[in-house]
Amino acid sequence: MSREMSGEDDFIARHFAPIAGQGALGLRDDAALIEPPPGRDLVVTTDAVVAGVHFFPDDAPDDIARKALRVNLSDLAAKGATPLGFVMTLALPRDHGDAWGDTWAARFAQALGEDARAFACPLLGGDTVSTPGPLSISITALGSVAKGRMVRRDGARAGDWLFVTGTIGDAALGLAIIKGEAGAALAREEKQALIDRYRRPQPRVALKNALVEYAHAAMDVSDGLVGDVTKMLQLAELGATIEASAIPLSPAAQTLVAAERGLLARALTGGDDYEIVCAVPDDACEKFVAAAREANVAVTRLARIEAGTEVRFLDDEGRAMFFAQPSWSHV
Amino acid sequence: MSREMSGEDDFIARHFAPIAGQGALGLRDDAALIEPPPGRDLVVTTDAVVAGVHFFPDDAPDDIARKALRVNLSDLAAKGATPLGFVMTLALPRDHGDAWGDTWAARFAQALGEDARAFACPLLGGDTVSTPGPLSISITALGSVAKGRMVRRDGARAGDWLFVTGTIGDAALGLAIIKGEAGAALAREEKQALIDRYRRPQPRVALKNALVEYAHAAMDVSDGLVGDVTKMLQLAELGATIEASAIPLSPAAQTLVAAERGLLARALTGGDDYEIVCAVPDDACEKFVAAAREANVAVTRLARIEAGTEVRFLDDEGRAMFFAQPSWSHV
Repeated sequence: MSREMSGEDDFIARHFAPIAGQGALGLRDDAALIEPPPGRDLVVTTDAVVAGVHFFPDDAPDDIARKALRVNLSDLAAKGATPLGFVMTLALPRDHGDAWGDTWAARFAQALGEDARAFACPLLGGDTVSTPGPLSISITALGSVAKGRMVRRDGARAGDWLFVTGTIGDAALGLAIIKGEAGAALAREEKQALIDRYRRPQPRVALKNALVEYAHAAMDVSDGLVGDVTKMLQLAELGATIEASAIPLSPAAQTLVAAERGLLARALTGGDDYEIVCAVPDDACEKFVAAAREANVAVTRLARIEAGTEVRFLDDEGRAMFFAQPSWSHV
Repeated sequence: MSREMSGEDDFIARHFAPIAGQGALGLRDDAALIEPPPGRDLVVTTDAVVAGVHFFPDDAPDDIARKALRVNLSDLAAKGATPLGFVMTLALPRDHGDAWGDTWAARFAQALGEDARAFACPLLGGDTVSTPGPLSISITALGSVAKGRMVRRDGARAGDWLFVTGTIGDAALGLAIIKGEAGAALAREEKQALIDRYRRPQPRVALKNALVEYAHAAMDVSDGLVGDVTKMLQLAELGATIEASAIPLSPAAQTLVAAERGLLARALTGGDDYEIVCAVPDDACEKFVAAAREANVAVTRLARIEAGTEVRFLDDEGRAMFFAQPSWSHV
């Protein structure tokens, strides 16, 4: 890590060196050293999270750490890549002596280390800077995939089936609950479950081999299902007609949407799902579903991918749905 | 790049897709794809720059772009690595419609693209987010080096000679001039030359092969020569006695230091040099100097590296110099 703050070396040695991987060289060099697995391609992704934009400044430090890493692991998973490690720049608000000091950093680093172990994605290096602005974390994650086998976003073909993992909209509804804009219809545990989906994305890393084996295209759903599916199919100049009733919702989300119809659009466009949407050829669907089951990742078939460039969503009465804002904007 | 701002896709397509490298997949996928050069190790480094901390918010967008990339190229150079490419997260202040809008972005991206070509380090991907805080740019640069040959920071041995590239202190004195704290003794062009060294680091990428071939250890000088040399030698549990008169200063820096003696400490501890300090064994010095000359990088021999852990700096009268703050703190 670079040295930029008084005592930064000590700060790093205390909190981050213990969770660093072998290639990090104890976080005491200018750079990390990686031996790329022979015969494999490298996959590199980067995502930043900013307090007040992607998370709340008073969120627990362990939730912030996990979110910062997991949004990147979600991208690797969507590409079918096996994590190799990550580097991080941590911009700490200038008053870090108090709010973002040792107590905060210890919890942040411990959770980051737990996730790094759980997902076999070690910390390789980073940079700690001070900022007059909000806490910001930028992570670059590296992964590897068999040569030529990265699952691209633009590879869908007409006749493929569109699949999605897990359930959609939980995080967006969880955020609505945090903001006091929804949730009256739910029990406390149900509300908490949705809030947890917002605070702790679950990257679908376990699906990576099934994607490499069977999917023509994939992307992670981070900005809302509607916008992301549209984006993926438009890249291939294809379309689809998706019935809202086919979209997997958790029981809590179903209750909310039933109680307040406007929340369906929020669930489908709100973002932060960190599920994976993918295109699987007709003759591979059975094997894909079996592989997903073996990986313990729920997958749901949404629609057939068709020629044409229209991506339509239909409500329960078969009417086309219109979305004021198909993709979530954090701005 | 991830989509997080209204119109971000268009923004990226307009400004950054044209400067992206092949592995960037048009910046339309979740991740970049790199075929690592066979038989080589990967070197990964990351550095962030924040407006008001590492540069001035009203610095020219092309200077900001170059600095953000070059501080990372400097780390790769110090490790002897050949650049492969970089990813970037760009956190734009929320009022980007005006101050950080298309005009700003066009100049930023053009300069970034010019540097990416000049240093053969293409843009591979990134993330654009909005922030309630200052403009911040975090770059992760990837490079490659022959297997097992990365030049480490901790490899110095007793009897090696300490070398440094270029001249030391120009950027720190340039910053002092910008702040109105120095410069009365200089002509306008001399002041500008020092300011340019602050605003436009010159990473010593050309020295990389000489370092791999001949250096036992190296690091880039980003936080001041005094602190960085001390850090490098302490990692190897070694020492050195460096005469200040042996440290290479530019003519403008010499004039300033002669006019105001206190500025010498500022030059030696002020940081932002982005030169390289390295340890070269006695029997390789001649070849190293020849290789550096061939690479068109000036190098100066500073001192012999010795057993013991004391790193001392002596003034012109042979007295030990003491520094209130051996490393620059941006905080």
